[in-house]
Amino acid sequence: MSIDQGIATRDVRDYLLALQDRICEAVAAEDGGADFAEDAWTRDHGAGRDGADRQETAVLGGGGRTRVLRGGAVFEQAGVNFSHVTGARLPPSATAARPELAGRRFEALGVSLVIHPENPHVPTSHANVRFFVAEKEGAAPVWWFGGGYDLTPYYPVHEDVVNWHRTARAACLPFGEAVYPRYKSWCDRYFFLKHRDEPRGVGGLFFDDLNEWGFERCFEFLRAVGDSYLGAYLPIVRRCKDQAWTRRQREFQLYRRGRYVEFNLVYDRGTLFGLQSGGRTESILMSLPPLVAWRYDWQPEPGSEESVIYDYLEPRDWLAEDIAEQP
Amino acid sequence: MSIDQGIATRDVRDYLLALQDRICEAVAAEDGGADFAEDAWTRDHGAGRDGADRQETAVLGGGGRTRVLRGGAVFEQAGVNFSHVTGARLPPSATAARPELAGRRFEALGVSLVIHPENPHVPTSHANVRFFVAEKEGAAPVWWFGGGYDLTPYYPVHEDVVNWHRTARAACLPFGEAVYPRYKSWCDRYFFLKHRDEPRGVGGLFFDDLNEWGFERCFEFLRAVGDSYLGAYLPIVRRCKDQAWTRRQREFQLYRRGRYVEFNLVYDRGTLFGLQSGGRTESILMSLPPLVAWRYDWQPEPGSEESVIYDYLEPRDWLAEDIAEQP
Repeated sequence: MSIDQGIATRDVRDYLLALQDRICEAVAAEDGGADFAEDAWTRDHGAGRDGADRQETAVLGGGGRTRVLRGGAVFEQAGVNFSHVTGARLPPSATAARPELAGRRFEALGVSLVIHPENPHVPTSHANVRFFVAEKEGAAPVWWFGGGYDLTPYYPVHEDVVNWHRTARAACLPFGEAVYPRYKSWCDRYFFLKHRDEPRGVGGLFFDDLNEWGFERCFEFLRAVGDSYLGAYLPIVRRCKDQAWTRRQREFQLYRRGRYVEFNLVYDRGTLFGLQSGGRTESILMSLPPLVAWRYDWQPEPGSEESVIYDYLEPRDWLAEDIAEQP
Repeated sequence: MSIDQGIATRDVRDYLLALQDRICEAVAAEDGGADFAEDAWTRDHGAGRDGADRQETAVLGGGGRTRVLRGGAVFEQAGVNFSHVTGARLPPSATAARPELAGRRFEALGVSLVIHPENPHVPTSHANVRFFVAEKEGAAPVWWFGGGYDLTPYYPVHEDVVNWHRTARAACLPFGEAVYPRYKSWCDRYFFLKHRDEPRGVGGLFFDDLNEWGFERCFEFLRAVGDSYLGAYLPIVRRCKDQAWTRRQREFQLYRRGRYVEFNLVYDRGTLFGLQSGGRTESILMSLPPLVAWRYDWQPEPGSEESVIYDYLEPRDWLAEDIAEQP
C-alpha cells in the first residue's frame, strides 16, 4: 500500500483542480445567467480564525479555491470548493471509525460541491471527492480516498431518480458488480437524519477509507465518480429547470431545505471535520442553502404533491424499477 | 444535599407549569395578534421516533406541553416548551463535565423558550430553567438546577442591552454579589460560536450544575431567574415593536438568524441533550427561526448600521455603562 506521497498528492491535486474547473464551467453554462466568483485562500491570511483554539486539532497550512455562483437564472446558489490542507492531528470526525489513526499528521485534498437551484422542481445535489494521507514517525503513511454524490429532490420525478442511480451504477461497474450496491447502501445509511428517522434525499454513492485496491485503481475509481457527476445531474436540471412553480412549491422547498441544514450541522463528517480542524468557515458553510424555513410540526397532507417525496425517501433498489432507458 | 425527590420534583413541576402559563399569557398579550397553540405530548404516543435507536440513551417516559405562537403581529414565532422526562442513561451532552454521572437514570424537568420577533429592531430572546435528578442503585440521588436567559439583537439599542443586564443582576443580587458576574461570564463563554469566533448575542445569565446552596435556596434562585425574564424582555419589545423597518434590515435579521441555527445545532447542550436522549424533535427544534438566510462570506460595511452589532457582541461589563436607570 506504500505510495510515493509527493507524486500521489500531485496527481490527485491536478485531477481535483481540473475537475473543479470542468464542473464550474458546465454549471455556469447550464445556468446561463450568472458565473462563479472565486476566493483563493490560504491558511495564513484571509482565512478567518486563528490562534488559541485552533491549536488542538490544528490545520497547519494549505489553502483552497472557493467558488460560488449566486442568484443565477437556475441556481440560487452553487458552491464548488477545492481545498488542500495539512494538519498536526487528525480530528475526531476523521478517526471515529479508525482510532489507530488518531493524532497522526495529515494531508487532505478534496473537491466538495452543493448546488441549490431556485426552482423547487430541480433537485439539490451534492458531490465530494477527497484524498487523505495520515502519517506518523516510524510508521508507513496511511492513505485513503472517499467521496460520492447524492440527490435531494423536493418534487421527485421517478425517471430522474432511476437515471441518477443508473449513472452511479455505470460509474462503479468497471470496478466490480458489488461496488454500486455497497456504496449505494452506505449512502443511504450515511445521509440519514436520526432525529427525524428520515434520509436526507434519494441517495446515490458514498464511500470512505478506500485503499483496498491499491493506489492506482482507487484513484481511477475516484475519477470515475468525479467524472460521472455532471452526467448524472445536468440532465435532470435540463429537464426540470423551465417548469413553472408556485409559491406553495417554493415554500415547501424552503421547508425541506431545513433538513439539509440539520443534516450538515448535526451529522455531516465533512462539515464537522472542517469546523473541528479549524478550516475556513465560510467555505465549509457554503453548503447551507441561501434561504431556509422551519415550520413547527408541519406535515404534508396525505395524497398532496408534497407527500410524494416522503415515499421516495424510503431507501429502495432503484435499479429494479421498470422504466425505459434514458434517451 | 439529600432531598425528598417526590416532593422536590412536584414543587419544581408546579412552578414550571405556572411559569409557562404566565409567560405565554404575557407574550400573547404583548403580541396582540395571535395566540399560542398547545401540543400536549407523552413519550408513548405522538412523540415521533421510537424503537431501536432510542434504546441507547433512552428517554423512558414522560411528556410535555409544547406551545407555539406563529405569525403574530409582533412575534413571527414564539415557542415556550415545558417537558418532564425520565431516562435510562444520562446522554453524553449532560455528563461531559461530570463523567461520574454517566450512565445514571435521570429525571429532567424544564421550561425552554425562544422568541423570534418579525421586526428586526426587536431582539430575539431565549430563556431556560431546568431541574435534573440523576440516580443509581446504592448511591444518593444527585440533583441540580440550570438555566438562564440571553438576548440576541440585530440592531442593538444601548439602553436596552444595559437594562437587560441590570434586570439579570437584580435577580441575582439576593444570592450574593458574586452571582451575576459569575453567571454573566458563563453566559458569554457558553453562547459562543467557536467556528465564527463570535458570541451569539449580548449575553445575560447561564448557570448549570447548581446545588451548592441546598435545594431550597437553589430552587429560590431558579424562580428568581424565571420570574425576572418577562421584566427583562418585554420592556425592550414594547419600545421597539412599532419601529418601522426596511427590507435591508429584514434581510440582515434573516442573515444573523443563521448564527442562531449554527449555534443551536452545533453547540447547544439543550438541543443536543434533546436529540441524543430521543426527545421530541419538533419540540426541540422549535427554537430554530421560521425563516433564515445564509450568504457566502458576507461582511457588514464599516460604519453601516449593520456593523454596530459586531461591536456589541464583544463581551463587556454592561453594568459599568453610564446610562440613566430605566424609568
